[in-house]
Amino acid sequence: MAIITLTTDFGEKDHFAGAIKGAIYSEIPDVKIVDISHSVSPFSIPEAAYIIQNAYSSFPKGTIHVIGIDSEINPENKHIAVKLDGHYFICANNGIMSMICAEIAPEKIVEINIHDKIVTSFPVLDVFVKVAAHLARGGTLEVIGKLIDTIKPITNIHPFINEEQTQIIGSIIYIDNYGNVVTNIRKPFFEKIQKGRDFEISARNYKFKTIHKKYSDIVNFDTPADKRHDEGRGVVVFNSSNYLEIALYKSNTETVGSASTLMGLKLMDTVTININKV
Amino acid sequence: MAIITLTTDFGEKDHFAGAIKGAIYSEIPDVKIVDISHSVSPFSIPEAAYIIQNAYSSFPKGTIHVIGIDSEINPENKHIAVKLDGHYFICANNGIMSMICAEIAPEKIVEINIHDKIVTSFPVLDVFVKVAAHLARGGTLEVIGKLIDTIKPITNIHPFINEEQTQIIGSIIYIDNYGNVVTNIRKPFFEKIQKGRDFEISARNYKFKTIHKKYSDIVNFDTPADKRHDEGRGVVVFNSSNYLEIALYKSNTETVGSASTLMGLKLMDTVTININKV
Amino acid sequence: MAIITLTTDFGEKDHFAGAIKGAIYSEIPDVKIVDISHSVSPFSIPEAAYIIQNAYSSFPKGTIHVIGIDSEINPENKHIAVKLDGHYFICANNGIMSMICAEIAPEKIVEINIHDKIVTSFPVLDVFVKVAAHLARGGTLEVIGKLIDTIKPITNIHPFINEEQTQIIGSIIYIDNYGNVVTNIRKPFFEKIQKGRDFEISARNYKFKTIHKKYSDIVNFDTPADKRHDEGRGVVVFNSSNYLEIALYKSNTETVGSASTLMGLKLMDTVTININKV
Repeated sequence: MAIITLTTDFGEKDHFAGAIKGAIYSEIPDVKIVDISHSVSPFSIPEAAYIIQNAYSSFPKGTIHVIGIDSEINPENKHIAVKLDGHYFICANNGIMSMICAEIAPEKIVEINIHDKIVTSFPVLDVFVKVAAHLARGGTLEVIGKLIDTIKPITNIHPFINEEQTQIIGSIIYIDNYGNVVTNIRKPFFEKIQKGRDFEISARNYKFKTIHKKYSDIVNFDTPADKRHDEGRGVVVFNSSNYLEIALYKSNTETVGSASTLMGLKLMDTVTININKV
Repeated sequence: MAIITLTTDFGEKDHFAGAIKGAIYSEIPDVKIVDISHSVSPFSIPEAAYIIQNAYSSFPKGTIHVIGIDSEINPENKHIAVKLDGHYFICANNGIMSMICAEIAPEKIVEINIHDKIVTSFPVLDVFVKVAAHLARGGTLEVIGKLIDTIKPITNIHPFINEEQTQIIGSIIYIDNYGNVVTNIRKPFFEKIQKGRDFEISARNYKFKTIHKKYSDIVNFDTPADKRHDEGRGVVVFNSSNYLEIALYKSNTETVGSASTLMGLKLMDTVTININKV
Repeated sequence: MAIITLTTDFGEKDHFAGAIKGAIYSEIPDVKIVDISHSVSPFSIPEAAYIIQNAYSSFPKGTIHVIGIDSEINPENKHIAVKLDGHYFICANNGIMSMICAEIAPEKIVEINIHDKIVTSFPVLDVFVKVAAHLARGGTLEVIGKLIDTIKPITNIHPFINEEQTQIIGSIIYIDNYGNVVTNIRKPFFEKIQKGRDFEISARNYKFKTIHKKYSDIVNFDTPADKRHDEGRGVVVFNSSNYLEIALYKSNTETVGSASTLMGLKLMDTVTININKV
């Protein structure tokens, strides 16, 4: 049975996501529909790119991912369907796929061209669902679009490195539910530059010299639990998606605060790593 | 396999929606359960009416829609099940169905009367699930209720028109995830009054003389992208549900603002359309 | 077909819940996945305990409940799988299960010990999903862990009673979507102490002498609807989970206010019941 996932900025309240699911079941009764997220910030392409990149690969090969962010068609915003890593992605050609495509080459990209048969002011419902149903029935990409070579990139997805390879300048690309701030510095990239040398990470006036394996690595479990003051302490890790992340141990934005709220770190802020010459 | 949808004001956090799903699967293992929304504002009948109206018709005929808003039974709030447009709706008789019923005549309405067998302080769980399971198994409405003729109306769902047919006074009935404000003026209604004449839409001190086909119609794609200032500009469209909507292009309530936040437009506010005499 | 439920603090936006669902379908294509909640407050064990306690029993026996709260493994936080009341629960041994286990004795508890084969910084994805899939395929608990006798308790789940049995001191353990405040005083416990005597409930400077059967019991339906002022009035009920709850009739935290916002009642606040000597 085919799986179709949904990643959108429709929010949790409006009828949009429900209507999409109804339309999918109307097209193909035997399908599994999985919500990845409907709470992407409105029109935030970088957030959508981060979320779909880190969710898609857990799904079985052949899964069809519908991404509904900024999908109104216009002269600069066409619709595409992409086959990559054995998965299908249906979205606007607005940069959402560029984060995934920077890591894995697409097998095939088509610009969807079934619009002449469809008048719509809700393209996810009227176009993307049709394409997803076509693929779920085993249809090919060529039937619903014309092959293209490249997709639209987004900027700022890669950190900068100086010529001497002693400084990485990254930026914050995502803030998660715990208020942890995620940078665009990935583990393999960092290790290739760092080569075992000492380093210091700076974000605003906060400094860190260690990247931990897990959040609770900062806890000294030899101290009795009631004598510890670890909750709320800063900790840097590579998160489960291998992105460098600045976190507070057991943070909660609403109560004890988080890396984002207490350190004042925001989307697009700079995070710098200075690496010793040796 | 039957489809049962859920539209409630239970929120995303509490156990209520989870318990409902468990109870449905306990009654009928082979069913698809689809969340339409659990984020209707608490006790907001107009919001629920708008959401279910715009989601239901995408589902296949025969779908069973459970609506859990203000459903505690009392002398003034009975439970009903409605067959309309080939779909089933189970809810309290508190006005939720009046928006749909204003457009399409119900085929059948019953007042649910299985309560004498059920003691409950959670009627969606204990009553609506039982009724939904009965319908999913192919049962008839008459078995679980007594036929009635009319349902309770809600007020303010229709705009006013002056006698000369030169002025429509509508109101804002919904604010969506993008902060776009949706009025109760629908496209066929508007066109019947307007008859091709020029018009001006007023909301507070904002005026619009054009209704666009899509949001990006206000963008001049001949100007280079970096010289445009379209994001945040006001635009009026008939939305994908054919309601007149005042929007900002690429709005985001949390960052750049939205029609609701920047124009100060709130639920129940008046939107007026003055139409030229010829 | 097995049912796997998810209760987490991942939030509605991040990719975590989506990735979990993908991983489950990759392990076992024929399974029903049900979201109970992803909006538990970050790291809030009492909230998670309350939510899972009140949702689980609606599901069919044999359902597998994955609870992803504070699940990073460390010397003080092991992973467990519990069989109780015919259901399976997979979570960290951090107190989440103690609310359920206080009412129903577990049939079997194992400390999960498959970690030596798994390197992970996302244990819900890499460990809990594996265990859930094993159970869904009919596997036994003993294969994935070693039997243990007791689980870690949480404090403050039971109210205090004075020696003369004339005073119950409870506390607020949950605030629901309507802003209603839920105490740790349950109906059977209360009735055993009260023994039909008169009583007075105090929360801050608010007093109540009646526990109603439903929220609308405070409405006088003999008064015409437009002459009533019931919305926003305080009412005490045993809620649908049998917990003593202080509510406002038709409350809405965002508009008219709620018990939490208008009475200033917060998590952990004391609620006292003084019972007459006779």
